[in-house]
Amino acid sequence: MDKQSLLEVQQRISPFIHNTPVLTSQLLDEMAGAKLFFKCENFQKMGAFKMRGATNAIINLTKEEQERGVVTHSSGNFAQAISLAARNLDVKAYIVMPNNAPLVKKEAVLNYGGLVTECEPNIKAREQASQDIVDNKGATFIHPSNDLNVILGNATAAMELLQSLPDLNFLLSPVGGGGLLAGTALAAHYFGNHCVVLGGEPKAADDAFRSMKSGHIETNISANTVADGLRTQLGDINFPILQKYVDHIVCVEEHEILKAMKLLWERLKIVVEPSSAVAFAVVLKEKEYFKNKKVGIILSGGNVDLETIKFS
Amino acid sequence: MDKQSLLEVQQRISPFIHNTPVLTSQLLDEMAGAKLFFKCENFQKMGAFKMRGATNAIINLTKEEQERGVVTHSSGNFAQAISLAARNLDVKAYIVMPNNAPLVKKEAVLNYGGLVTECEPNIKAREQASQDIVDNKGATFIHPSNDLNVILGNATAAMELLQSLPDLNFLLSPVGGGGLLAGTALAAHYFGNHCVVLGGEPKAADDAFRSMKSGHIETNISANTVADGLRTQLGDINFPILQKYVDHIVCVEEHEILKAMKLLWERLKIVVEPSSAVAFAVVLKEKEYFKNKKVGIILSGGNVDLETIKFS
Repeated sequence: MDKQSLLEVQQRISPFIHNTPVLTSQLLDEMAGAKLFFKCENFQKMGAFKMRGATNAIINLTKEEQERGVVTHSSGNFAQAISLAARNLDVKAYIVMPNNAPLVKKEAVLNYGGLVTECEPNIKAREQASQDIVDNKGATFIHPSNDLNVILGNATAAMELLQSLPDLNFLLSPVGGGGLLAGTALAAHYFGNHCVVLGGEPKAADDAFRSMKSGHIETNISANTVADGLRTQLGDINFPILQKYVDHIVCVEEHEILKAMKLLWERLKIVVEPSSAVAFAVVLKEKEYFKNKKVGIILSGGNVDLETIKFS
Repeated sequence: MDKQSLLEVQQRISPFIHNTPVLTSQLLDEMAGAKLFFKCENFQKMGAFKMRGATNAIINLTKEEQERGVVTHSSGNFAQAISLAARNLDVKAYIVMPNNAPLVKKEAVLNYGGLVTECEPNIKAREQASQDIVDNKGATFIHPSNDLNVILGNATAAMELLQSLPDLNFLLSPVGGGGLLAGTALAAHYFGNHCVVLGGEPKAADDAFRSMKSGHIETNISANTVADGLRTQLGDINFPILQKYVDHIVCVEEHEILKAMKLLWERLKIVVEPSSAVAFAVVLKEKEYFKNKKVGIILSGGNVDLETIKFS
């Protein structure tokens, strides 16, 4: 992979995604002691950066593969992203969801034209259900994060940010499966000017943090974090990219995530999901490190169940 | 007043305000059965359209008046707007606030450089405290809504919207004191193309609705609505403008306001205050009336106490 291939990805997916706005806030800058640039993927189509990777993964299939459709298992943003990206490209999308997924998430997928298959709520059942669809329909399985085309698609968020602000000193994104952080790090490597990339991770699901320390992929025994998009496991395609291009990962506590999210809602007047607040929480936690620097922060998405959010 | 004088107001205040973005949503259009354009004054400086009127009111004072300062009584957005507008113009702002106002609101005013005078929480006390400042400091009193310069400043929100979308069939704003609706109606008269203006008002504080019916200013006995920016009383400068240029006012129930607000948060991914959702609630309530039309909606502001909002 090189700079040119990233530019080609950007051009290929551009008809299907938004070049999302970048917001700034004098008050948040004063609080952080740095100049912050928030890349608002909450305003992306279907409400999250995942639209980028999903679109790129489907575009890169052969015509024959596209005719047989795609399959993924997810109860979150990637299910919606694959459904909408597939519809835009006139491809069938099979979505495996646990039978206890919230009705609103199932409806969102159906709204975007996804074909839902329900399964028991455990990993084995969903992998089996996905494999059945691969076997019976000839559909191609697309992983939500551990897939190079997904990573390259996700990279375009940071590319857009760096194309308008080439002199960012730092670039931060949250890390769950690692698909956004890996893409962000590649973008900074090819389009930044000595731009240092950091990941933000919930302490309660810190497999990426521990993996970077130990040098091999660690797992989470539990992942009880409000940042529901970051409960997933780091993958073996993402990990070597993080090792090579990410400076380090900082963990934040649950109360720090909620405090950061509340500030984003109150001051930027935007709705972001808890996962999005994790990278901003890192900046608030490590103020000395970022002092007077230009810091880009990828706000990953805005799909949040308002009824479950409690500020206090 | 004429078209040219509104253009002059717009030019005079433009260095001090944002030309706020207009958002659209395919999904909300489908729900409403109309093409909706949301003018996002939640992204205005200090978070509400009130910055426009406050700035215009202070700019229009003589140099001598500006040197003696301005005074208003408010515990809400107008207190912040006058404080920030005055600071931008190097003018002293005296803000009379009830001594039971939330600390966060007092701090916001102090942050913008306002000089706070506390008083007992009743109308007589705040009018007396304001008058004392007028008498002792020579400051000029500025009313939050019942003031022609405030109205003309507020008109610039709808002017911007109509300058980019001259063919809107309808334009809606919420109505409390009437300062935003009067400005919106003037803008539509001078810059619209047969654009019909409607006001949205909470049923629980429907003085403007009743005033338009009876032909004279009616009062609210109570104003127990979640739309806290709309609890104020219609004024005698606004009312004749509404009578002349507003088609009619539609009242909405509390649950309709909350439902509309939740949709705006979920679908546009923006934080708006309950008052902002009132005009959108009207569109959802009267779908047949707006069917297939182009409808502009002024989202008045985004200053909301997140801890008090409960969606369910």
